[in-house]
Amino acid sequence: MPQLRIALAQVNPTVGDLGGNADLVVDWTRRARAAGAGLVVFPEMMITGYPVEDLALRASFIDASIDTVHRTAQRLAAEGLGGVAVITGFLGRRADLPPRLGRPAGAPLDAAALLHDGAVAAATAKHHLPNYGVFDEYRYFVPGDHLPVFRMPADGGPVDVAIAVCEDLWQDGGPVAVTRVAGAGLLAVPNASPYERGKEYVRLELCARRAREAGAALAYVNMLGGQDELVFDGGSLVVDAEGRELAHAPRFCDALLVTDLDLPAADPARHPGETPTDGGDGTVITIRRIELPAVKTEDAERLRPGQVGGAATPWAAKCQDGPPGGLAEVYAALVLGTADYVRKNGFGSVILALSGGIDSALTATIAADAIGPDRVHVVLMPSKYSSEHSVTDAEDLVKRQGLHARTVPIGPVVNAFDAQLPPISGLAAENLQARIRGMVLMTLSNAEGHLVLTTGNKSEIATGYSTLYGDSAGGFAPIKDVFKSLVWELAKWRNTEAVLDGRTPPIPENSITKPPSAELAPGQLDTDSLPAYEVLDALLDDYVENDMGAAQLVAAGHDPALVQRVIRLVDGAVPAGPQDHAEELRPRPPTAHHQPLARAVRPGPRALPMIDGRFCVT
Amino acid sequence: MPQLRIALAQVNPTVGDLGGNADLVVDWTRRARAAGAGLVVFPEMMITGYPVEDLALRASFIDASIDTVHRTAQRLAAEGLGGVAVITGFLGRRADLPPRLGRPAGAPLDAAALLHDGAVAAATAKHHLPNYGVFDEYRYFVPGDHLPVFRMPADGGPVDVAIAVCEDLWQDGGPVAVTRVAGAGLLAVPNASPYERGKEYVRLELCARRAREAGAALAYVNMLGGQDELVFDGGSLVVDAEGRELAHAPRFCDALLVTDLDLPAADPARHPGETPTDGGDGTVITIRRIELPAVKTEDAERLRPGQVGGAATPWAAKCQDGPPGGLAEVYAALVLGTADYVRKNGFGSVILALSGGIDSALTATIAADAIGPDRVHVVLMPSKYSSEHSVTDAEDLVKRQGLHARTVPIGPVVNAFDAQLPPISGLAAENLQARIRGMVLMTLSNAEGHLVLTTGNKSEIATGYSTLYGDSAGGFAPIKDVFKSLVWELAKWRNTEAVLDGRTPPIPENSITKPPSAELAPGQLDTDSLPAYEVLDALLDDYVENDMGAAQLVAAGHDPALVQRVIRLVDGAVPAGPQDHAEELRPRPPTAHHQPLARAVRPGPRALPMIDGRFCVT
Repeated sequence: MPQLRIALAQVNPTVGDLGGNADLVVDWTRRARAAGAGLVVFPEMMITGYPVEDLALRASFIDASIDTVHRTAQRLAAEGLGGVAVITGFLGRRADLPPRLGRPAGAPLDAAALLHDGAVAAATAKHHLPNYGVFDEYRYFVPGDHLPVFRMPADGGPVDVAIAVCEDLWQDGGPVAVTRVAGAGLLAVPNASPYERGKEYVRLELCARRAREAGAALAYVNMLGGQDELVFDGGSLVVDAEGRELAHAPRFCDALLVTDLDLPAADPARHPGETPTDGGDGTVITIRRIELPAVKTEDAERLRPGQVGGAATPWAAKCQDGPPGGLAEVYAALVLGTADYVRKNGFGSVILALSGGIDSALTATIAADAIGPDRVHVVLMPSKYSSEHSVTDAEDLVKRQGLHARTVPIGPVVNAFDAQLPPISGLAAENLQARIRGMVLMTLSNAEGHLVLTTGNKSEIATGYSTLYGDSAGGFAPIKDVFKSLVWELAKWRNTEAVLDGRTPPIPENSITKPPSAELAPGQLDTDSLPAYEVLDALLDDYVENDMGAAQLVAAGHDPALVQRVIRLVDGAVPAGPQDHAEELRPRPPTAHHQPLARAVRPGPRALPMIDGRFCVT
Repeated sequence: MPQLRIALAQVNPTVGDLGGNADLVVDWTRRARAAGAGLVVFPEMMITGYPVEDLALRASFIDASIDTVHRTAQRLAAEGLGGVAVITGFLGRRADLPPRLGRPAGAPLDAAALLHDGAVAAATAKHHLPNYGVFDEYRYFVPGDHLPVFRMPADGGPVDVAIAVCEDLWQDGGPVAVTRVAGAGLLAVPNASPYERGKEYVRLELCARRAREAGAALAYVNMLGGQDELVFDGGSLVVDAEGRELAHAPRFCDALLVTDLDLPAADPARHPGETPTDGGDGTVITIRRIELPAVKTEDAERLRPGQVGGAATPWAAKCQDGPPGGLAEVYAALVLGTADYVRKNGFGSVILALSGGIDSALTATIAADAIGPDRVHVVLMPSKYSSEHSVTDAEDLVKRQGLHARTVPIGPVVNAFDAQLPPISGLAAENLQARIRGMVLMTLSNAEGHLVLTTGNKSEIATGYSTLYGDSAGGFAPIKDVFKSLVWELAKWRNTEAVLDGRTPPIPENSITKPPSAELAPGQLDTDSLPAYEVLDALLDDYVENDMGAAQLVAAGHDPALVQRVIRLVDGAVPAGPQDHAEELRPRPPTAHHQPLARAVRPGPRALPMIDGRFCVT
């Protein structure tokens, strides 16, 4: 049985940075070659990054992507890497579809290319376009209708490899079904699959099932990194044709997963050419079979797999050891998402308001873990309603973590506003204080160049318990998809990890244990306006994530009066009345169109099975 | 040849207001009956309003929509209107599609029902789902696969009527093609087609072409009203089977368009039943043929058409007389969009900053025309950089229009901030002033309940020449899709119309003629940071609306250096440098996902043909 050494390059491209992304392809192909791999697979849309959104509709951007793919093939050959078969995602276009109302302009493709011997040897594109959750692909792409199968040399004779893209695994029929007809021994699948809590199992089970359906081993390469509102967690894996996992890459760090695969010998009776085939989903998929010419290269020394690959962060490392779907995994996602947002948008530092409460304490800690405490600036902005412990708890955190801190009391500015305006009270007066704090942060951001982080959690944001242009003002919201209950869990977990590592817990115990308060009115507590968070969060999860209606929520055991109240908060009765600290005079859309970061926060359905990875290289 | 009197009810539903929308169906069916109509057609998604967005994914909302349709049929019968055939859009569901990853939860349908004799006699749903521009329907709906054809009595014998929904007209194949096979004499089409400048021709030409393809007369009923970011302009119309326009409704006001149609007699050889038919688009459409039972009703007196229908606003009336695609049409769209946003979101009044410049002057005028000057509150917020004429021009406008005005100097608040912060200058100092003004408006909004209107135009917003949480803070932005050049044109047009009407021009001449300035630094002018607006706007139109790349823009005659500069402004280099007044430290997404209000601002391709309307009732 022939044996092929393949490398899965789980790397971190940046949307729009075509040159930098191409550099990654060349660099990691070099490493794969050094590890003796004959085939290396990169993620979906590697050349452009993912998601490109409206950039896909700009003809000049598609041109640039296609041009970059060709030039990358030439660069690989020029560097002596032309003999490696390289599969990489890119933004392509279909030439056979004329413009039509409703068809994405320029017929863009979520494509994958096979680079070999200095040229693009084959190309394909995603057949099934996802348009749910965080995906809007009917807006940006047209579907592909081909399955490339290429024959390449392996130890012990040639093998046949097919290529499909991401969503083609998730839907029945199409490229996976046709892979079986084509008789390929391996299906290589570039992906950009965003992190959700517990998704790791779903992917493994899916790959196993599709491998069995295709009758082929399956190499699943996922993207790494934060991009805009998404986090790609890696976790690339290889299964054999019976669906048994052979190897898996770590999550939340870049990696080169090198695996030796036993594959069936290519059938000499199958010759290059095109074969239209029933996709089993109402479409015809054309198998496009090619044979890679032998490329004479000097034999690379086969390095030991342990010598190649990327470097895990401490948070990625904790995640590999932690329970699946657990707090380590969530924390690693938040750190990676924050780090990449700062870096990819060209900021050197962040600034945030530190109140002494748990939300800003956790946000500051995530930021310090993401980019280092020396790049985190915090501002204490006490008012006459701030309690003693607000300042001392915030100062305690600053000392524990070594952040840059300054204090800007807001009282004089509040007084200046009050002198200019008619007498105000209630919500208007509360919101004014929050907005002054937001303005201080934005002014310091404009003057000094920091990215403003907001500290709102998912429970607050869902119920509108925040101030527009106040505490919600800023460029990135690290914990926007974390319910308040989970904020506390993460804070406790982070402190415990510090103790286990022999370090100072970063978050003052008092910030964790004291009752939450916005401190915008005398003696104010969150529980004056909202139910207890453990009750609220369970209800929000069922309403916002599970789309239950009022009757369903009551049937599921939620208190009927609370159901009415929370639906009104989330869907935005206008105005909702004085019991809400929130900005309630602005209408809110019924629900958000896009799902935010780390959408699912429920643990996975079952424990992760023990897996037998032959090579797991980081 | 049988003759059928039909009524097109061009009315204004509200998203989510099922009860109010059902009331509109009953009220306008009563009017249609009074006008002697045997068939009345309402817009797409009439029962729920359009667009419902994520509400479509909530099972309880679909249930409520379906329930409302049934109860509306019963109400009609109870009121003696059961003999009228009523076609209305609603949110339905398909029962034959099980849950599947990527399929909208609950299989929602953009449906239309035929109500007759107290029951739902037939239902269908949109077959082609638009997912471009302002539409995201792959996210929310599954496609329909039926064409109902119902036989109903007319003067001189029964006729056959088919039903299709909106986008089914815009795409080749599907329901229109199958209508010809079915031999229907009339195709009734509920629509929710948003306004774009010049779209009126496109619709007429489309209806004429599809009528010829279907071999049937075509009744095109469009929705009216502003909803969220969209404006539906009405302009319902009827064409005969040769594509000749028989009647059209006015635009920008509700109306009942009553028309007598000569239709072919129904073929007695065609019997009730189902006939699967090739849709010509790769799908099978099942013709579902029914016969409406005769309903005995007392004959209504046939009123003269002039006695029924809604009332045109002055701005809608000017639009009917004005040149197609002209300024009257744009102004009517802005007034309607603003009026309905205020009303549908439950506000009684608006508040905005009045600077003496043209943008706030036009915005205030639109608001006063939309909801009346007594509900418009303006705030003058001079600073040390404000020129003399800023205050006098603003005061002049207030007097001309009779608005509620107050003055809040921002100097003391600026000083209070300055005392608390390290020395700031440049952008940070400019933005601070704009943010203080935004906070004053938000505080007054919170205290008094006004909706805050922002005054930014499309040129500013596209280039980022504005301040986050400053002048961009607010609930609705009436001129956000109006380039600065068009702002001036509209202001001049509005003043001229006032003169023609024998009224005082609402906008001070000096606000129109003086050079634009943000007045955030000494002697500042927009032209310090931006090219002349006529040059900028032409370039923005090609880049933002036409998706041209840099090379294309230069080839189209734009200055190469300016092309580079404007692309950097629009796509957000970070930071863009001190020459921009804009908030440049926040990254911006490459381009907006959603198209804003009144997207296209180019005039239509040709002059509107003279049309021969038999009844055009308002």
